[in-house]
Amino acid sequence: MLNNGGVTLGVGDDAALFGETLVAKDIMVEGVHFTKGAPFLHIMRKIVTANVSDIAAMGGTAEYGLLGIAIPEGYDVNAEDIVKPFEMYGVKLIGGDTTSSQDSLFVSVTIIGRKNQHVLQRSGANAGDVIYLSRPVGRVRELLEQELAGGDTYNHYLIKAETELGDLLGRTGLATSCIDVSDGVGRDASHIADKSGVCMVIEESRFPVEHLHVKGDAVMFALGSGEEFALLFTVAEKDISELEMLAPSAVRVGYVETGSGVYLEREQGRVDISEKGYEHTY
Amino acid sequence: MLNNGGVTLGVGDDAALFGETLVAKDIMVEGVHFTKGAPFLHIMRKIVTANVSDIAAMGGTAEYGLLGIAIPEGYDVNAEDIVKPFEMYGVKLIGGDTTSSQDSLFVSVTIIGRKNQHVLQRSGANAGDVIYLSRPVGRVRELLEQELAGGDTYNHYLIKAETELGDLLGRTGLATSCIDVSDGVGRDASHIADKSGVCMVIEESRFPVEHLHVKGDAVMFALGSGEEFALLFTVAEKDISELEMLAPSAVRVGYVETGSGVYLEREQGRVDISEKGYEHTY
Repeated sequence: MLNNGGVTLGVGDDAALFGETLVAKDIMVEGVHFTKGAPFLHIMRKIVTANVSDIAAMGGTAEYGLLGIAIPEGYDVNAEDIVKPFEMYGVKLIGGDTTSSQDSLFVSVTIIGRKNQHVLQRSGANAGDVIYLSRPVGRVRELLEQELAGGDTYNHYLIKAETELGDLLGRTGLATSCIDVSDGVGRDASHIADKSGVCMVIEESRFPVEHLHVKGDAVMFALGSGEEFALLFTVAEKDISELEMLAPSAVRVGYVETGSGVYLEREQGRVDISEKGYEHTY
Repeated sequence: MLNNGGVTLGVGDDAALFGETLVAKDIMVEGVHFTKGAPFLHIMRKIVTANVSDIAAMGGTAEYGLLGIAIPEGYDVNAEDIVKPFEMYGVKLIGGDTTSSQDSLFVSVTIIGRKNQHVLQRSGANAGDVIYLSRPVGRVRELLEQELAGGDTYNHYLIKAETELGDLLGRTGLATSCIDVSDGVGRDASHIADKSGVCMVIEESRFPVEHLHVKGDAVMFALGSGEEFALLFTVAEKDISELEMLAPSAVRVGYVETGSGVYLEREQGRVDISEKGYEHTY
């Protein structure tokens, strides 16, 4: 949908761009994206985060929000729980629609933002670039598995989008490509690889897993953790010292080369991880 | 939410305005806004129409659409049925989110438009203005009642938004206030009365009901017909001849005076119709 009557980027990137405006829209459904017992504030936090993250992944700044919500009878919705997650990101809630629902809770959020000087796309990575993660991943999967095993830890809903970093990358143009980790690093990296026509190599020796408590292959576990909302981005070799000064918590995890696909470089050789992702469905 | 950090109109008008941009968002849920058997194309037509109508009611032009849809297993969704209703209004579908649902079909649409020279609000009506309906109303309720009585007529979903007229009023500024008929003429007129601080008087002698086949009080029936998406608007006395030249199918139905509330002026006296509306729930 390139340059289609003013819409410069459409379906396929994280958000849609027209003129100076970026728009992202997500829906979340009870029993599909969250369990029945999940606290409403947590659900709202996660859906607002997912949308704000889509804007951040394009280097933009989230500004306005619209909420659509269908509420089953007897479900307790607190107005403050609706407003807080938007406020947390400095997003003004400007409208929406509330209705009843027969069965499940449905939540739909639209976030409207403004682009910065540079629009980060999935298509800009070049051979020789370095791959960064804005922060270590894997903790969301750990917490989700605890919840599914019967623990009532809903903390993984509270993960924050990388709004400051998205804004920084959009202002400086330091990233050649960017995506937010929603399907898992392997699968999200393959979107960059496909759109940019390059091969993405993740180096196991650099991949941070010290923060995880999983038994077994912690790197593979972390690569398959979705809805992390970390940013995965590429930087030209000449810009990495500046990037590391401006974004000191970003972690260098690999490099881009000619070719295609996504691989994990282990001591014993390369493993295809392009399908190493996470299913959004429980 | 007037002039709140760049957002000049927020929740409470038909659409939200920021800068040159208008945004409307609606959701529709199976069993609440449509019956289980309703054809998918009809559902899509109605939700797109409802949103486009919100933009038209502010005198704007709809440009871009985003769709969120949660689809229960086994439900047949045709991609063409998704695209057609947007195309019908010249709206480009630029993004969205599709997911599964455990129980009900859930559809959410966001429409983004651009304002014209004049933004039509609910607050601009003045005593002495004339009240117009863009077209007769009541047919939607007639068809809905046929459907609920077991007839499989889903034609009321296919009613069209008044996009050309909204655009005309937004370019010329001929309307002092405007709203689309979504809750029924009585209730929608009371939004204008409240926001403008005036009394709205509907004249029974002028109110068109010849197109209806209902038994009994056809005027009261028509006043309680919702989701008509006709425009209800007010025009200054000095502008009515120009309005009637430019919008010849608009029907003059009443006048604005000082005071408050909404009344139907009948031969035997005035009747309060401010609560004469339609419940969105079956």
